[in-house]
Amino acid sequence: MNASTEPSGEPEPWSTRSRRTLIETPWLKIARDEYVQPNGDPGEYTYVDIPGSTMVVPVLDDGRLVMVEQFRYLFGRTCLEFPAGGLKVGYDPLDGAKEELAEESGYEAGSWIELGRFSPYNGVSNEYCHVYEACDLVAVGARPEPTESFRVVEIAPDALRERIRSNEIWDGMTITSFMMWSERSEGATRE
Amino acid sequence: MNASTEPSGEPEPWSTRSRRTLIETPWLKIARDEYVQPNGDPGEYTYVDIPGSTMVVPVLDDGRLVMVEQFRYLFGRTCLEFPAGGLKVGYDPLDGAKEELAEESGYEAGSWIELGRFSPYNGVSNEYCHVYEACDLVAVGARPEPTESFRVVEIAPDALRERIRSNEIWDGMTITSFMMWSERSEGATRE
Repeated sequence: MNASTEPSGEPEPWSTRSRRTLIETPWLKIARDEYVQPNGDPGEYTYVDIPGSTMVVPVLDDGRLVMVEQFRYLFGRTCLEFPAGGLKVGYDPLDGAKEELAEESGYEAGSWIELGRFSPYNGVSNEYCHVYEACDLVAVGARPEPTESFRVVEIAPDALRERIRSNEIWDGMTITSFMMWSERSEGATRE
Repeated sequence: MNASTEPSGEPEPWSTRSRRTLIETPWLKIARDEYVQPNGDPGEYTYVDIPGSTMVVPVLDDGRLVMVEQFRYLFGRTCLEFPAGGLKVGYDPLDGAKEELAEESGYEAGSWIELGRFSPYNGVSNEYCHVYEACDLVAVGARPEPTESFRVVEIAPDALRERIRSNEIWDGMTITSFMMWSERSEGATRE
């Protein structure tokens, strides 16, 4: 038994003795496990329990990337990010990515490439974020949820890189997804 | 009033009406705010309330980077990461970075460069992670905490890049910090 529902090829040295949900909201659960370490030491682990998320790197025909700027309540400032969102339980990540892209940026994509997955916050949340490249974009009009409001920004990869260098971009999930995309598409060109 | 204690140069369009701590552990708090959006719509926001963290990109004299592999309970697998850790309230990020580097990797550094900060999980946690490059390393011996166990791995930047491309590296905070470091040090060479 494992805090993530994902299969793992590695041994499980800490065993889970109990699990309970302490808090549940429409967006996340807070859970607490009792575990035992391989040396027999017991302990408790309190964490964010979430079914995963997706982030999309949308590439226009001219090579620019589509990003969204939104207000981030926890930091009291706006943040420039790639379109992203949480998955519902049992949802296919690609379907989630398609929904988030359309909702937040107003684009649909003709082709999708899976770039991999990462854990944004591995000590605190069991979330994997699945990253996709979306190409052959067609504008269909954004449909944000009531608590969301987005400004769509189209930006060249080099300009985004410069904003990472200057620390204007401060969303780790966006920087991670951009690097995964950049290593795949630009790394391929470089070699 | 702002969920983060950091100053912000931007207007604060959502106002916080109340805040309470629902859960407190030695590592984090779970808090819930009542907010009001600029259009008057009220709502509740449940989040991880944490004083911040640091991550260190340690560079050996031969150019290799020092990383640590540790077991991540929430994923039931080991993870290769840069040394990192949470800040205590009121702690200077650089002091935290020095402690984490020594505890996890067993190195002390003769020179430190601040690379910037990012939010690992901006919809769920108010944490900023402060990123540093550490050079002029001297081995002093690791001192992990009782719940931690680390294997130190020394790796060339190109090999790390390859492991990001293959998705073997799955820690978003590590990929973000590597990109911030890489843009600064390698980006400077490229230009």
